[in-house]
Amino acid sequence: MKIGIVGLGLMGGSFALDIKSVYPSSKIYGSDISKKNQERAIELELIDEVIDIREFHKMDVILVSIPVDKSISVISKILDKINNKTLVFDVGSTKGAICESLNNHPNRGNFLASHPMAGTEFSGPDAAIKGLYINKTNIICEIDKTDIKIRTKALEIFKLLNMNIIYMDSRPHDVHVAYVSHLSHISSFMLGKTVIEKEKNEKNIFDLAGSGFESTVRLAKSSPETWTPIFLENKKNIVLAIEEYVSNLKILKKIIEENDETSLSYILNNTNRIKEILKNTIHENGK
Amino acid sequence: MKIGIVGLGLMGGSFALDIKSVYPSSKIYGSDISKKNQERAIELELIDEVIDIREFHKMDVILVSIPVDKSISVISKILDKINNKTLVFDVGSTKGAICESLNNHPNRGNFLASHPMAGTEFSGPDAAIKGLYINKTNIICEIDKTDIKIRTKALEIFKLLNMNIIYMDSRPHDVHVAYVSHLSHISSFMLGKTVIEKEKNEKNIFDLAGSGFESTVRLAKSSPETWTPIFLENKKNIVLAIEEYVSNLKILKKIIEENDETSLSYILNNTNRIKEILKNTIHENGK
Repeated sequence: MKIGIVGLGLMGGSFALDIKSVYPSSKIYGSDISKKNQERAIELELIDEVIDIREFHKMDVILVSIPVDKSISVISKILDKINNKTLVFDVGSTKGAICESLNNHPNRGNFLASHPMAGTEFSGPDAAIKGLYINKTNIICEIDKTDIKIRTKALEIFKLLNMNIIYMDSRPHDVHVAYVSHLSHISSFMLGKTVIEKEKNEKNIFDLAGSGFESTVRLAKSSPETWTPIFLENKKNIVLAIEEYVSNLKILKKIIEENDETSLSYILNNTNRIKEILKNTIHENGK
Repeated sequence: MKIGIVGLGLMGGSFALDIKSVYPSSKIYGSDISKKNQERAIELELIDEVIDIREFHKMDVILVSIPVDKSISVISKILDKINNKTLVFDVGSTKGAICESLNNHPNRGNFLASHPMAGTEFSGPDAAIKGLYINKTNIICEIDKTDIKIRTKALEIFKLLNMNIIYMDSRPHDVHVAYVSHLSHISSFMLGKTVIEKEKNEKNIFDLAGSGFESTVRLAKSSPETWTPIFLENKKNIVLAIEEYVSNLKILKKIIEENDETSLSYILNNTNRIKEILKNTIHENGK
């Protein structure tokens, strides 16, 4: 099987490792807008060969793993040139715009819109890790627009990676991830910003950082190249999520100001339920 | 050496394990307001014996590891009854009120105000883990108010636990931890609350939670019994920290609403510095 990967960062590089482990005889071709990343992907043996996107029509499977603002035009160009059996899929964190823009593409049936709930705060080919996709949830959007044979091929791959498949329309997907994923990144980035601004002496942050601060601020280490376009593309939902988050912070502030121990304790106890909700979630990477 | 521990939860229970590992011949006595916790601490072999606080005057070292709103009166009562060689110390997350209230205690010299930057989101005796204190930062406040011999005893213990000691006045301590520790807990609790409110179907949260959400929301699993009094006791600093955090969230929201890619990318890149700041922080537990 010939696998083409456009974008050799954390997501593309890790996919290369995982697909190789389930299809050892597959040959992996890659391409990245950064020549340095391409060379590094070869050095790290993530891919077997660098090839130009224009040659991607020779592939059986193509993964597009680049920032979401670049995906639409790149996927569209790839779909123009593929053979009729090629599966093209993406791993972007927003799905509404991409699905809408590809709606009328003559080869829409060769594309599968997917969003694996997998990642770490690191980026680039050196961030690639084996097992990133294994056992993770993969959200597939608008499955009915993907040809049956192409779907089957994709599901076969995801099954071998032991992924838990969830089907969702692209618009509700973007609403849910605004809360469960994007807001986490925003709360973490703004926590980092607030603390850096306050602690002019950075040695203080280092000295005082317990494991609590470290895990809450972990996502603030994430790649701005990945997250700037995600925040802008999912603007409408993210703005609402921030508003609700700010409203909760203001309520809490007022309760603290008023020494309202009963309400404070009630809110913390009620939010503790997240423990039960997440109880059986297992993430082997990115923690 | 006779060690007394008042409060047999995560902090007290873990201290029992760690002190036993560096002073294997020490005998550990414990007490908890919850009889169930006391029994469990014996079952788990965290302590050798349950004794009443009133007998704590026989101890060489006493750790008070109970919620901060209870600490002041308990420490004061213990200081009333100890022998003149006993070291009493606490591990509370706020230090201003406790130091102020004990200022005029005749045995103030036997007390050392400390705050180890160590913990996990779990609580109770079952949450006790070996190594929680090892290699962690320990903030000591107002050291000059502790008698030299008592100080020496404390520093010997902390040295054996390989703790990194930082000295700070209690008021600046409360300001710094409001940002580097308490705000993390607030941002995490409010993230959990916002997501739970939005996702009426909790299965959605479970399915969509990637490792990013999990680590950002981890602190929302923390004990309300511990954190309610911390938030109230450090009210002044925490209210300011929330205001600065909310202000940053609003700035970010406006930038996203205005599609201001340059400012958004600038902020994310600038906050990425947290990666360098925290680079060499090692936390072996609680991650």
